[in-house]
Amino acid sequence: MEKRVYISLLLDLYGELLTDKQRNIMDIYFNDDLSMPEIAELNNTTRQAVYDIINRCEKLLLQYESKLNLLKAQEKRKTEKKDIEKELTDLKNKNSFKDNIDVIDDIIIKISKL
Amino acid sequence: MEKRVYISLLLDLYGELLTDKQRNIMDIYFNDDLSMPEIAELNNTTRQAVYDIINRCEKLLLQYESKLNLLKAQEKRKTEKKDIEKELTDLKNKNSFKDNIDVIDDIIIKISKL
Repeated sequence: MEKRVYISLLLDLYGELLTDKQRNIMDIYFNDDLSMPEIAELNNTTRQAVYDIINRCEKLLLQYESKLNLLKAQEKRKTEKKDIEKELTDLKNKNSFKDNIDVIDDIIIKISKL
Repeated sequence: MEKRVYISLLLDLYGELLTDKQRNIMDIYFNDDLSMPEIAELNNTTRQAVYDIINRCEKLLLQYESKLNLLKAQEKRKTEKKDIEKELTDLKNKNSFKDNIDVIDDIIIKISKL
């Protein structure tokens, strides 16, 4: 995954743990694609200050993910959900439920692990 | 939910954001049911110091939950999973798939929202 996308996803998950100012700068840098000089002007500060905030927040977000693994768990759940959805879609083309009880049981187990 | 149970669940979710010492004290207080004097003796410290750590960590855990809502989301997912599992179990008693495609579609949508 591209670093920019990765940080943006972490920002979705852990943004609330940053201060309002930090979150706002990270948001316009990573989601609105504003440049550091533009952000500096908007915030009445220097490019260096913006760079420092972004740098520090990136480290914080990576640290949160290394501790809580929310993105990793979310990605894993996404893959498993696609897998279950495929199995259910396949079920729709079968004729009888009674012949596919093992498939349904398997799906139930998978869902319980989500 | 009883406060003790609630804090213990928050500790499972956010414990990694505490220091090793904080997490250890919270763990033996909330999960192993050791008393504050016992914990103080084990850690070669005062009862007051243990009380302060527990008090501070409780506030931190509640703060994390108020920002990230992981426990709230987990409880909601648990309820929805039970609901889906029940629908699938009911399906096993039906005869034909073709008559129940709308039920399966509904389950697929619910899973996508987990």
